[in-house]
Amino acid sequence: MGIVGKEKCVDDCAEFACGGQVMVATTDMLHRSTDFVPGMTDWQAGWMSAAVTLSDIASMGAAPKYLLIAVGLDDWKCLEGVMQGAKDCCMKYGAEIIGGDIDRHNELTVVTTGLGLVDRRDIARRTGAWPGDLVCITGTPGQAQAWLDGYHQFEKYLFEPQPRVTEGQLLGKAGVSAMMDDSDGIALSLYDLMSVNENCGFALDLSKLPLPAGIPAERARELALYGGGDYELIFTIAPDRFPVDDVAATVIGTVTEKNAVTVDGIPLEKRGYQHRWE
Amino acid sequence: MGIVGKEKCVDDCAEFACGGQVMVATTDMLHRSTDFVPGMTDWQAGWMSAAVTLSDIASMGAAPKYLLIAVGLDDWKCLEGVMQGAKDCCMKYGAEIIGGDIDRHNELTVVTTGLGLVDRRDIARRTGAWPGDLVCITGTPGQAQAWLDGYHQFEKYLFEPQPRVTEGQLLGKAGVSAMMDDSDGIALSLYDLMSVNENCGFALDLSKLPLPAGIPAERARELALYGGGDYELIFTIAPDRFPVDDVAATVIGTVTEKNAVTVDGIPLEKRGYQHRWE
Repeated sequence: MGIVGKEKCVDDCAEFACGGQVMVATTDMLHRSTDFVPGMTDWQAGWMSAAVTLSDIASMGAAPKYLLIAVGLDDWKCLEGVMQGAKDCCMKYGAEIIGGDIDRHNELTVVTTGLGLVDRRDIARRTGAWPGDLVCITGTPGQAQAWLDGYHQFEKYLFEPQPRVTEGQLLGKAGVSAMMDDSDGIALSLYDLMSVNENCGFALDLSKLPLPAGIPAERARELALYGGGDYELIFTIAPDRFPVDDVAATVIGTVTEKNAVTVDGIPLEKRGYQHRWE
Repeated sequence: MGIVGKEKCVDDCAEFACGGQVMVATTDMLHRSTDFVPGMTDWQAGWMSAAVTLSDIASMGAAPKYLLIAVGLDDWKCLEGVMQGAKDCCMKYGAEIIGGDIDRHNELTVVTTGLGLVDRRDIARRTGAWPGDLVCITGTPGQAQAWLDGYHQFEKYLFEPQPRVTEGQLLGKAGVSAMMDDSDGIALSLYDLMSVNENCGFALDLSKLPLPAGIPAERARELALYGGGDYELIFTIAPDRFPVDDVAATVIGTVTEKNAVTVDGIPLEKRGYQHRWE
């Protein structure tokens, strides 16, 4: 998301009324040369394509409902695996593939459009962070990027991301003040959040950051702060609303009045993960 | 549409309940080498991308509401024109671009996902044709293909297709028995309709077929029957419901009990337009 301009697309999804609820909608284009890691199976490419879109829906606190999938193919043999992967991911998270398009293309290209539903009062957006709120993250950031560093025990995190669909809905109901997924890394996510929450900033406490296991500490911190390819939820929430039942999340900092992103008081670099396998 | 299998995607759009209405959803992938004609401007590529999706919505009798657009770019300079073309097309037909994605790609690739709304009793589908119904078409088929034949007075029909959005809704309300757009040509459209209306066929009367003007009769008939790139609506309707106020359409045949597509009693060839500019 993001093509339309800020007035429409601050969030991970667009939204509109659907009966008494809010429908959220998002579209993502992935393709072989920049998004699908060499070595991924067709099934994994399909899974990932669905997962990134379901993650956007999760980050709004919505329940995924429908997915449309357009597949451009340089090799028709890929189609079955890609579709099965997308279908399995949708099935796991309660969504249904309702339509699509196929086309010949010069590299595998998958565009997934997801639709989800959420009650108006439970919707989570990027805006709304408030000084004094906690900054939290689900799961352990940096594991997907760790695979690219050669720590191949983390393959599943990069190749078969698990969007936080259940957690997103629980967090929406619990009244998080702001939420997004961290697919570009924690650092860029926090800068994105700061850009739409103009009267606050984020102060991280490095000692609280969950780190990928089995990696030297300094490198692990680098991966956790700047690594991409994760689909965790990063959110802010009033202290009296945390923890949220059935959501495994870690407090990693606080929302400040100062418009800056810091780690242990030092400004965090504004950089993240650049996709490109070529 | 069509990737999911017949149980879900007989029609030009998928559908689901949205409040008391039906929301229809469709996605289309277009790209430079097979869909955008050499000579098209970026604006026209964007217009066409939106138009093909709005046409699918029109063919369900629905009002277009929202469009999401994913653009893969080999040249970032194209983006503004593509987006403006899509936006202008949406604005003309009452839809709004609510989200999107951009990505670097090795050729211009545009995936549009459209959402529309229709009252349950007004929805039009491909199924429902009945022996004795009239077979009708809006506008004049074959004009887009005529441009490719060198009749450059038809450029607008190929480069800037005008989806039959108003007509689709009026026809839905009027109770057409079956409807689709003719983007692959009349012949393939009728065979598609026959495949989902198993107990009937279509008998065309060649003398009734509207023909592109200024083209020798034999070639004009070939273009009208087999040419692609048009976005007219082809529909069947009970004789007592036709004509429909404010819809310019021509009766070109009747629905028969015999499971065949014929023109003046002779089987129509099952062929259509193959996109490929290379």
